[in-house]
Amino acid sequence: MGKNEREENDFGPENQNQEEEEEEKKKKQLKEEELSVERIFENQEVPSWRKQLTLRAFVVSFVLSILFSIIVMKLNLTTGIIPSLNVSAGLLGFFFVKTWTKLLHKSGLLRQPFTRQENTVIQTCVVASSGIAFSGGFGSYLFAMSERIAKQSTDTLDFKKLSLGWIIGFLFVVSFLGLFSVVPLRKIMVIDFKLTYPSGTATAHLINSFHTPQGAKLAKKQVRELGKFFTFSFIWGFFQWFYTAGDNCGFASFPSLGLKAFDNRFFFDFSATYVGVGMICPYIVNISVLLGGIISWGLMWPLIEDRKGDWYSADLSSGSMSGIQGYRVFIAIAMILGDGLYNFIKVLSRTLLGLFHQLRYKDVSSELPVADHSSDVSSQSQLSYDDKRRTQLFLKDQIPIMFAVGGYVAIAAISMATLPHIFHQLKWYYIFVIYIFAPALAFCNAYGCGLTDWSLASTYGKLAIFIIGAWAGAAHGGVLAGLAACGVMMNIVSTASDLMQDFKTGYLTLASPRSMFVSQIIGTAMGCVISPCVFWLFYKAFNDLGQPGSQYPAPNAVVFRNIVLLGVKGFSSLPKNCLVLCYVFFGAAILINLIKDLVGKKWGRFIPLPMAMAIPFYIGSYFAIDMCVGSLILFVWEKINKAKADALAPAVASGLICGDGIWTLPASILALAGVKPPICMKFLSRGNNAKVDKFLGS
Amino acid sequence: MGKNEREENDFGPENQNQEEEEEEKKKKQLKEEELSVERIFENQEVPSWRKQLTLRAFVVSFVLSILFSIIVMKLNLTTGIIPSLNVSAGLLGFFFVKTWTKLLHKSGLLRQPFTRQENTVIQTCVVASSGIAFSGGFGSYLFAMSERIAKQSTDTLDFKKLSLGWIIGFLFVVSFLGLFSVVPLRKIMVIDFKLTYPSGTATAHLINSFHTPQGAKLAKKQVRELGKFFTFSFIWGFFQWFYTAGDNCGFASFPSLGLKAFDNRFFFDFSATYVGVGMICPYIVNISVLLGGIISWGLMWPLIEDRKGDWYSADLSSGSMSGIQGYRVFIAIAMILGDGLYNFIKVLSRTLLGLFHQLRYKDVSSELPVADHSSDVSSQSQLSYDDKRRTQLFLKDQIPIMFAVGGYVAIAAISMATLPHIFHQLKWYYIFVIYIFAPALAFCNAYGCGLTDWSLASTYGKLAIFIIGAWAGAAHGGVLAGLAACGVMMNIVSTASDLMQDFKTGYLTLASPRSMFVSQIIGTAMGCVISPCVFWLFYKAFNDLGQPGSQYPAPNAVVFRNIVLLGVKGFSSLPKNCLVLCYVFFGAAILINLIKDLVGKKWGRFIPLPMAMAIPFYIGSYFAIDMCVGSLILFVWEKINKAKADALAPAVASGLICGDGIWTLPASILALAGVKPPICMKFLSRGNNAKVDKFLGS
Repeated sequence: MGKNEREENDFGPENQNQEEEEEEKKKKQLKEEELSVERIFENQEVPSWRKQLTLRAFVVSFVLSILFSIIVMKLNLTTGIIPSLNVSAGLLGFFFVKTWTKLLHKSGLLRQPFTRQENTVIQTCVVASSGIAFSGGFGSYLFAMSERIAKQSTDTLDFKKLSLGWIIGFLFVVSFLGLFSVVPLRKIMVIDFKLTYPSGTATAHLINSFHTPQGAKLAKKQVRELGKFFTFSFIWGFFQWFYTAGDNCGFASFPSLGLKAFDNRFFFDFSATYVGVGMICPYIVNISVLLGGIISWGLMWPLIEDRKGDWYSADLSSGSMSGIQGYRVFIAIAMILGDGLYNFIKVLSRTLLGLFHQLRYKDVSSELPVADHSSDVSSQSQLSYDDKRRTQLFLKDQIPIMFAVGGYVAIAAISMATLPHIFHQLKWYYIFVIYIFAPALAFCNAYGCGLTDWSLASTYGKLAIFIIGAWAGAAHGGVLAGLAACGVMMNIVSTASDLMQDFKTGYLTLASPRSMFVSQIIGTAMGCVISPCVFWLFYKAFNDLGQPGSQYPAPNAVVFRNIVLLGVKGFSSLPKNCLVLCYVFFGAAILINLIKDLVGKKWGRFIPLPMAMAIPFYIGSYFAIDMCVGSLILFVWEKINKAKADALAPAVASGLICGDGIWTLPASILALAGVKPPICMKFLSRGNNAKVDKFLGS
Repeated sequence: MGKNEREENDFGPENQNQEEEEEEKKKKQLKEEELSVERIFENQEVPSWRKQLTLRAFVVSFVLSILFSIIVMKLNLTTGIIPSLNVSAGLLGFFFVKTWTKLLHKSGLLRQPFTRQENTVIQTCVVASSGIAFSGGFGSYLFAMSERIAKQSTDTLDFKKLSLGWIIGFLFVVSFLGLFSVVPLRKIMVIDFKLTYPSGTATAHLINSFHTPQGAKLAKKQVRELGKFFTFSFIWGFFQWFYTAGDNCGFASFPSLGLKAFDNRFFFDFSATYVGVGMICPYIVNISVLLGGIISWGLMWPLIEDRKGDWYSADLSSGSMSGIQGYRVFIAIAMILGDGLYNFIKVLSRTLLGLFHQLRYKDVSSELPVADHSSDVSSQSQLSYDDKRRTQLFLKDQIPIMFAVGGYVAIAAISMATLPHIFHQLKWYYIFVIYIFAPALAFCNAYGCGLTDWSLASTYGKLAIFIIGAWAGAAHGGVLAGLAACGVMMNIVSTASDLMQDFKTGYLTLASPRSMFVSQIIGTAMGCVISPCVFWLFYKAFNDLGQPGSQYPAPNAVVFRNIVLLGVKGFSSLPKNCLVLCYVFFGAAILINLIKDLVGKKWGRFIPLPMAMAIPFYIGSYFAIDMCVGSLILFVWEKINKAKADALAPAVASGLICGDGIWTLPASILALAGVKPPICMKFLSRGNNAKVDKFLGS
């Protein structure tokens, strides 16, 4: 999965960033030993771009797309924290096709060997497809339009009835624009600017290593680990299911730290997914989340609840935005916006400064003063053998500029004509304005992502919410217009950075830009169908989807809804002192970031990330505890055997995440079929238990 | 712990037997490689018998005695299955004293190095002491006298109020007789007959191996594993405690195989103890137990319950011996008696045949035709260096025969004078008769145990129940007289075989018979105080001790109670068709044993053990599932790394058992202090859950 669309919670990319960085470092060492990767592959013929696009690649991509869409969807709807699944995508892609080709080889039917270019095509297609599960906004703007989320807000009940038809239509209309908007710039970004794209680079190294003989051995080991933990995690999910016959039943409601802690949402909820996520995320992210949970649920909320009746009316429902829930959501939003704003300005200024340097000195080998990732070996002064060969192949297959511009204009025209039919509140001229500015923003995002691996897609989306929401105004359906505009904007900037990331991967694996582009288009088309269907499955199967405290609270949907409400109506609806607290946390987020950047890397890595801290504000710390358990496992494993942990931990984590994710599929099918679990594992206080025993006995 | 007192469920010894056999085989190979153990130790001076009895040895013994008494007590009261704890006793004894001497060595205060003789003294003392926890009958005859158990029977309410005072007194009076009764025979048994005593031999090899340099390394590794799993198991027990605020709460009531299976007592109850027990017991024992559970709770009881109202009155309480509970208990007893009778006859005939050969040919080096364990290296014709040296040291320190005979007569006189004061129903002439025959039976048991490692202590006890019970008659307190007689008999024959087992260990480690004897006496005295105190802790802390379905059902107490009732009153009280079923299962037990012996070892090892099958008849299969989980873990571990599994599995299992066992101590203190767990983890069916939610909501 491209890193750049993971920006819902901005530490997402950073965590990948760090992880990939480490991986990259290792690979780099390896590379330095081997001196040249392409010399190893010298004798292998690079197939033509058409031959890179095989049927089997797309069949495998389709299967993996469904797998990863389910996982991303589940993560979207639970906490919105989505770790890097690149490793598993690359790994499983390799595994599937390798098995396939081996079987065919044995039966003598193999016509074409499995190449790393084909592997890259699969990787690209899966990333494009499952990326839609994120940028489609099923956990954020799109779901925020629904009646279920609208009912949780205090204000207007502006909502749009969700239906599979218009969601698919909407995605088809907006998802392809990003691809066309940056295609012409690929040479500038990849060859001239030599941008790093850490995720793309790491993925490329992974694929390259798989296709060298020792690499395949490691891959096999990793796949075995992944398979083992996949099975475990799947069975564990299945086992848990039996005990969930009702609300607050089962392991997900296990008060492992006591009932009082449970009431404040501190507990280990036995989720294999988030233990896996914790193993992939860097320690600081997990600790930040836990810290945020302690500050909010351990300190602030109990203190604010003591003011009940004073700061806010005592007879509000527990979910009311005018009560305690309002503090939770808006303080979280303030912190997310503060962090987002700081990083937006930071990345933008670095983008502009970097561009300025590039254009002024036009010296491809110059060290970019701001791009601290550009110390990649490829930016050494003399063009190495690898660089020469890669550049040659990257420039061989061209995509005409007119094709890209024509495609952009055509799709823009179509969407301007159709979108107002889907959302009456979204006038055609709003869309027109977005499409004028979009290519520039898409370029900014792709460039910034190349430098920092940090995609700001959802920040651009929030910008669109505020601008279009305010422009339309509350009275004229500003809420829906804002959310729809957010979708349009997010899809463009997100896919743009994805594509550029993939071009970098293709560059490093000698895959043709044309095959990359075709793969992206096919993947995006797949995603436009798969993701809505997966979402629909969840939506129909789990009736409490989006309810606070439920299995799938979809926290970002509520956050997006409230952002748009803030945009169109101002701060009038907030409970007492909430605004002051929001300012404090907004400022604190900026301040923490500032300190982090000022003290330098050595101490900065011990300073928590405000974005990560904000998530438990709304949903509680249970997943933070899962993630810290994952961290702990990794930590102990690294102490025991660092080399093994480094090699296998991502596979184990992916196995845990994938197994639990795939269990969601039969779980939702069971729910749809009306099969209910037979047992409730209930946790009662001693007093209540005595009462219940008496009640059941009589 | 001496093997020979574990005969409550006769497979106990056999499982140890098999285990020890294997271990012995390994050791034997090792020995053959090394050729002579004593040559390695040649340069080490053997301390005088007084110097073998150090203060530190008894301090460590005292601590370990408490540990093992708690564990044995817990096992007594849950299922009555007690695995071999020799390995852990030897291991922990070594570890404690080694740490101690190391510390002293560093501080320069060490006066005496740690020798294997001292290690043997600790081992002997701990075995003697914790043996009382078994032969004291806290899970069988003694507890069967109490009001709690008496109430569960349909018939007479003859009971004796338990009190710490008379229990300690009773034990002191009866426990030392066994020691004196066989002391004079030690030379005949160990040197002339060269009996194997597999458990004693294995323990000696263990101790010898610890005191060679490589042995210490392995011991360290084992202790580390033991410590790790001890901690885990202790914490797990602690964690479970929090969720047990009421009946049927917590992990011990986890319907892991569904509610219907749970109602028939099929579930995994997360007991670290029984997973550990399962890892120590041979596969066939675990499978026998599971099979017994399936036959009884899966088939027979549901079928019999369908006849409710026909075979037995429908309005009996669920625990009534005239109802379904009667079938459970009496069919189990029939099977246990059938198996016991078969093995009694088998071992007795082998004992007599063996004796006959020994006396007739008087050739110490002749192969005993019946003693299939006597192929020990020590029975080779020429006396090896090892044998010479061992014999020399074994004969150096003598215990005068007059001392032994005098001791026996004196203690017998004291107990004849005091026991009738404790139990009015037990006339002095009953005791006199027992004491006339006891030395012969003690000799039989010690000899049989030396041949087969199979102690028949509880079978001799049951014999005493029937004889004295019938002699006294129901009207004259035959119930209590029978149970008390059982206690007298069991203590004598059990300690006799224990002591002889230890003499063999001492012979092989060059420990002096005198130090062994002193250590046994001190250990027995410790046990006479520690065990009743531990039992008292359980008795006071858990009010439902002995109740069917509770945490501590003490199944053997009910079985012993019903045996004595059968003895004094006949079969009149049994429900319809129960007697027929009893005959069938009694016959089946004998038949299965017969087939097992006839088909030979190759196929016989796949035939289940009737004694093991009978246990779940009464208490259900949950512990069988725990044990099978233990088996499974061991099986997988052996598949992955056989050498490691063989070396470390006993340590892991001991860790699991000890940790959980020790947790019982704080748990019972908490219960005594009135601290109750805060949460109930309850399992409700979907329907009940809905009702409860409604009830709690309103």
